Amino acid sequence: MTDILTSARADLEADARVRADDRGHVFHSWSAQALIDPLPVAGGEGSTFWDYAGNSYLDFSSQLVNLNLGHQHPDLVEAIQRQAGRLSTIQPAMANDVRGQLARRITEVAGDGFEKVFFTNGGADANENAVRMARLVTGRRKVLSMYRSYHGNTSTAIALTGDPRRWPNEPADGSTAKFFGPYAYRSAFHSSSPEEEAQRALEHLEQTIILEGAATIAAIVIETIVGTNGVLVPPPGYLAGVRELCDRFGIVYIADEVMVGFGRVGEWFAFQAFDVQPDLITFAKGVNSGYVPLGGVVISDRIASHFDTVAFPGGLTYSGHPLACAAGVATFEVFERDGILERVRDLGSRVVEPRLREIASRHPSVGDVRGLGLFWAIELVSDRETREPLVPFNASGADAAPVAAVAAACKREGVWPFTHFNRVHVAPPLVITEDELVRGLDVIDHALTVADEHASH
Amino acid sequence: MTDILTSARADLEADARVRADDRGHVFHSWSAQALIDPLPVAGGEGSTFWDYAGNSYLDFSSQLVNLNLGHQHPDLVEAIQRQAGRLSTIQPAMANDVRGQLARRITEVAGDGFEKVFFTNGGADANENAVRMARLVTGRRKVLSMYRSYHGNTSTAIALTGDPRRWPNEPADGSTAKFFGPYAYRSAFHSSSPEEEAQRALEHLEQTIILEGAATIAAIVIETIVGTNGVLVPPPGYLAGVRELCDRFGIVYIADEVMVGFGRVGEWFAFQAFDVQPDLITFAKGVNSGYVPLGGVVISDRIASHFDTVAFPGGLTYSGHPLACAAGVATFEVFERDGILERVRDLGSRVVEPRLREIASRHPSVGDVRGLGLFWAIELVSDRETREPLVPFNASGADAAPVAAVAAACKREGVWPFTHFNRVHVAPPLVITEDELVRGLDVIDHALTVADEHASH
Ligand SMILES: Cc1ncc(COP(=O)(O)O)c(C=O)c1O
Ligand SMILES: Cc1ncc(COP(=O)(O)O)c(C=O)c1O
Repeated sequence: MTDILTSARADLEADARVRADDRGHVFHSWSAQALIDPLPVAGGEGSTFWDYAGNSYLDFSSQLVNLNLGHQHPDLVEAIQRQAGRLSTIQPAMANDVRGQLARRITEVAGDGFEKVFFTNGGADANENAVRMARLVTGRRKVLSMYRSYHGNTSTAIALTGDPRRWPNEPADGSTAKFFGPYAYRSAFHSSSPEEEAQRALEHLEQTIILEGAATIAAIVIETIVGTNGVLVPPPGYLAGVRELCDRFGIVYIADEVMVGFGRVGEWFAFQAFDVQPDLITFAKGVNSGYVPLGGVVISDRIASHFDTVAFPGGLTYSGHPLACAAGVATFEVFERDGILERVRDLGSRVVEPRLREIASRHPSVGDVRGLGLFWAIELVSDRETREPLVPFNASGADAAPVAAVAAACKREGVWPFTHFNRVHVAPPLVITEDELVRGLDVIDHALTVADEHASH
Repeated sequence: MTDILTSARADLEADARVRADDRGHVFHSWSAQALIDPLPVAGGEGSTFWDYAGNSYLDFSSQLVNLNLGHQHPDLVEAIQRQAGRLSTIQPAMANDVRGQLARRITEVAGDGFEKVFFTNGGADANENAVRMARLVTGRRKVLSMYRSYHGNTSTAIALTGDPRRWPNEPADGSTAKFFGPYAYRSAFHSSSPEEEAQRALEHLEQTIILEGAATIAAIVIETIVGTNGVLVPPPGYLAGVRELCDRFGIVYIADEVMVGFGRVGEWFAFQAFDVQPDLITFAKGVNSGYVPLGGVVISDRIASHFDTVAFPGGLTYSGHPLACAAGVATFEVFERDGILERVRDLGSRVVEPRLREIASRHPSVGDVRGLGLFWAIELVSDRETREPLVPFNASGADAAPVAAVAAACKREGVWPFTHFNRVHVAPPLVITEDELVRGLDVIDHALTVADEHASH
């Protein structure tokens, strides 16, 4: 099956022109520049985007899991166009209507105890500034974070990151330490149930705090649901236990909600599904679907009040950018008008979960499926007994071929998947129709036969 | 004189609403939250913006020296509106038409030896990624930068910063070291001419390199003209000497052009006024006047080619954001069509410079004036003989009162100035009319009588 929308018209001249400028002049992230072949994208709408060659793709990756309201959402486009015509930008030291409105809307949904928002340009600088606040409030320096995590690419954010992207950028000042989070399918703690996994992961964290020195630790940073590194949903009780440890040891609890906030799992913030309250919440992506760069920190009153009479030593030229905030305000309106959170919960539990469980039961290459809302991982193995990953940790090149082949099979059938190591994630726009969702899952189902060839039956 | 434009209509209800949201929910940069009173801005056009109370201000600060094409430039607004309607965003791994076009335009004006651009969200992350490239290419870690400099607010950028904003964020890993740059008016080298200042500052830098260990130094980062910390224009020969030292010791020369690039001093990049070629150029602000957050690194071919077959380990969700790039492409069109570089050179040398020299000759509080293009500093002293600064280094509160009073006098007369320590900067939008420029300089001239009261005559 190939899937060509009428909106995709072949324009090979444009394709060549875009490729030439790109290959000639754009230096791409995370890449060896001579070994990549970026796809020129001509347009998008809703859950679909298309290239210049006439191919359309269902975006099962929501770009970088930021496009929560899909491509070219008319309300967001209009909000940006209107704000551009009113006041494109104004510096952070001024007061601005949409900036204030968005800050108010965010604190309203964050819940009691949150009144202030510090805006940044994206997720990395949100984490940078959250860590800075924690350090200043506690007078301590060290920050704990998980192996298997991603927190961004600026120096502190990458130091916190617990995946291989940290390695070439390792800090040398002992200001961070890593611990193991819960991961029931590959338990670091030899647990045999979610309850045991939670309890043992908390014991491990407590030991890590004690051995690193509680009095040296400013903050613990946790992706509420680990995103890129596996859609690891914390078992019941884990995050409440983290909260308790933070209280006991005077440590600031920072929830990184950059990927999972703003509806991805059917809540405004994912921590709300786990009955826990962090001290600082970092966000980006879904706040305005990335239509204009925006991130930020929601600050608990206790921490905010520290900076009532003491200056906060941080800032950036584009903090609280009006164009970005206008798209954020429109996001709130769409979420509420269209019942986005409800539809994510409904589609997740009624369509995605049963279908993925059914897929898992049929494909010998599928070791585990897990997730919440419209955020799921399919973990691929070469052997369901031993749980041997289908490709090694941090595989690249030929080593990664079996998963690359699954991705290629999806693309051939018109679905753009998110793959990472030995996983395929399901993270479509939250506005995806049920038909599109089913069609995308059909394509993934079919593409997994490619993985099955590498798995013991 | 008060200056109320017809476009400013009082709307005190809106004023109260914007203030309430702002004071209630927006956490501001670099501030003690309970001690500030941010001005609600209602709109802007060209070189003017206005509040809700009916006051208009000539923007002699170009917001944070980013608004090079002024408020609500119709071409930039239209480019954003058009791009929003075409394709608001697409992830960095794809090829995109405006992203490629902007990268090409930037490399064309950067000159020979520059073919690739890595895009970021702002200036800080541009510097973060430039330093990362330098470290990976050289295999060395330490980075040298100047006292009296600002390079941004994320961890590496603030570690490089040579002004007091670094102090609460000091790194502890010995990965940075500071040196003294040329500053003829307050020479650290007891020099008595620009030539001597250049030569002695280079000797000092060479000694610093040798004593820090050339083989440990990845990069030297220099604001081509130091911005916030004083509009310090390097004396003839200095930057060429830096280039020579970098070549001799295998060090990467990073030019921070975040504030001075894109026309501020009448050149695409300020280094082009000094006949020197850096290895990496960081930019932000003027590239699209900050209408949409954007920054980046222009990469020399030698450094770019290092990453042809080796992956560059860095990235961010909004790298090369189409909305931001579209505003950048429009910026190039406006610059060329309207001869922006030529008019900056003309207005700077014909209007600003003579007027500031004349002001300096009349006001006992003016110790020095210096600058280039539409980027000037007036340095205030309490005594022209001893050059005692009018307010102490890093003054705040009552200590800073004499300069705060000058700023207040400017605002009363309808000019929004940029002040820092004992200086008033002149940094209006590059589209300012000659009449507006003269009017703003008149107001500053008049306001300086307030400073004169604190100076020996
Ligand atoms: C959980 C998490 N935190 C932080 C970031 C960094 O965000 P940004 O790329 O906007 O800096 C990401 C990006 O993917 C993320 O997934
Ligand atoms: C010279 C220079 N470099 C870097 C920066 C940081 O830029 P941003 O605030 O966009 O991170 C600034 C901001 O004022 C600057 O003036």
